[in-house]
Amino acid sequence: MDEIKLFAPATIANLSCGFDVLGVCLDHIGDEMIIRKSRTKGIRIIEITGADLPMDTKQNVAGVAGLALLDQFHTEIGFEIRIHKKIKAGSGLGSSAASAAGAVFGINELLGRPFSSADLIPFAMEGERLASGTAHADNVAPALLGGFALIRSYAPLDIIKINAPQALFATVIHPQIEVRTADARSVLRENIPLGKAVIQCGNIAGLISGLYTEDYGLIGRSLHDEIVEPLRSILIPGFEKLKMAALDNGALGSGISGSGPSVFALSKGIETAKNVAVAISNIYTEMQLPFEVHVSGINPAGIKIIS
Amino acid sequence: MDEIKLFAPATIANLSCGFDVLGVCLDHIGDEMIIRKSRTKGIRIIEITGADLPMDTKQNVAGVAGLALLDQFHTEIGFEIRIHKKIKAGSGLGSSAASAAGAVFGINELLGRPFSSADLIPFAMEGERLASGTAHADNVAPALLGGFALIRSYAPLDIIKINAPQALFATVIHPQIEVRTADARSVLRENIPLGKAVIQCGNIAGLISGLYTEDYGLIGRSLHDEIVEPLRSILIPGFEKLKMAALDNGALGSGISGSGPSVFALSKGIETAKNVAVAISNIYTEMQLPFEVHVSGINPAGIKIIS
Repeated sequence: MDEIKLFAPATIANLSCGFDVLGVCLDHIGDEMIIRKSRTKGIRIIEITGADLPMDTKQNVAGVAGLALLDQFHTEIGFEIRIHKKIKAGSGLGSSAASAAGAVFGINELLGRPFSSADLIPFAMEGERLASGTAHADNVAPALLGGFALIRSYAPLDIIKINAPQALFATVIHPQIEVRTADARSVLRENIPLGKAVIQCGNIAGLISGLYTEDYGLIGRSLHDEIVEPLRSILIPGFEKLKMAALDNGALGSGISGSGPSVFALSKGIETAKNVAVAISNIYTEMQLPFEVHVSGINPAGIKIIS
Repeated sequence: MDEIKLFAPATIANLSCGFDVLGVCLDHIGDEMIIRKSRTKGIRIIEITGADLPMDTKQNVAGVAGLALLDQFHTEIGFEIRIHKKIKAGSGLGSSAASAAGAVFGINELLGRPFSSADLIPFAMEGERLASGTAHADNVAPALLGGFALIRSYAPLDIIKINAPQALFATVIHPQIEVRTADARSVLRENIPLGKAVIQCGNIAGLISGLYTEDYGLIGRSLHDEIVEPLRSILIPGFEKLKMAALDNGALGSGISGSGPSVFALSKGIETAKNVAVAISNIYTEMQLPFEVHVSGINPAGIKIIS
């Protein structure tokens, strides 16, 4: 195999009570990447469409993630990467993670799969370090593993894949505004009340329980965040209206995707997820705010080989 | 049925990363209670052995919990309660919870079971309010439901039972010292770093995942608490030595039971749990500190009817 064409999926990190520990992989939103072997050692980004991103390997998240892999697996083979971005950078849908995860997945396949998908996570995290300054795993892990990925610990890295209940669907809406990650970080407080931490622990524990038992009601009751959402949602126009519309139209829960500005809702059944999409789209249409909206199943296996 | 004899089990609350949200029911440690119908309305505590506790119904946790039930179910029948305490008050093993849960369970049985076990939890919580000033559920819920009980939320009350993996065993050691609940509360800090809350969320999520998947390694890796244990453990003599001895002898994890002074360890297999009991007993023997030690399976169903 000299060339591989991939679907590199979007992901929702944080998921309300899952702040900094949980992410989920989407099925119908993602980039296309083509990775080809070359005789020249190293990695070259030879084409990017759909986004204005650096072509310099060391300035590109896919390049940096790939180099991190090659740093641990010596080969004379080189790689050329083409990226067709569909996930908007800065959307809060794991755009950089998709590129980083796709690069290491593709290179690993072309090398005959020396690493497991789980092994690839730390390499992809180096792409995140370049993109945001922090080597976080809550987008790259679900992109590589599929389903829900729980980051139990960073030191040592300990990631648990949790399968999604069959009927769970996501709706995401992306207002075409920019929220800088630095701003999304700066609104957070260094200290929080112990009581709020206990509430968050109860909810993340309830969400995990609901995922294993396919208890959609429990999933919905657990999708709350009293720590980060109240601070970050002020950066997202119409957030409360979107959330109310989602819940009023049957969503199990709704919150900020990643650090925003995209807003997600989880629903039982695709029909509900579509109704939620219509309802929240109407909010932004009324506000005359440009947006993109997506309805997606949960991607059970992560990155897909197209050909 | 005019009389019922019960086993009212001890419980471990908090369980490291499960601070204020998780408890587990034990099998081999518990009180005996005998509840009998009487012609005189109301509740009378007619015998208590093994502890010096108030006989006045309104000053006794079993009495108060029973009255809370009778407040919601009008009957001309009265009840007499005998309590044979085996769980030491102030041990951190849910002594008050056992009495409160046993009283409401027994009265409910004698009334023909108008309430489910889950319905009984709020009544039993009133006993906890009398005992500690807070109507907490993390001992009464596992005592009534068995297994692990997750308190997802108090407002509204939302409790999820999680079955314990088959081979999980608890070792608990109770140093014969008094830690006042007020002291155990006063060492806590009102605010905690957001980063520590995230670590706690990762661990409680990992623990819940490990319980569902019977992944003993994950259960062990998740049993950490960087928030409460560092503050409360200073009230428990030799805590670090006990914990190290437990882990060195194969325990999956170890921490403070409830608000102390008992220390628990969870192990895979009864042999390991027994080895841990020997090892931690040696620590207190060397320190010349009187103690009681118990090895117990996880009680899958909570309160048991003896006759």
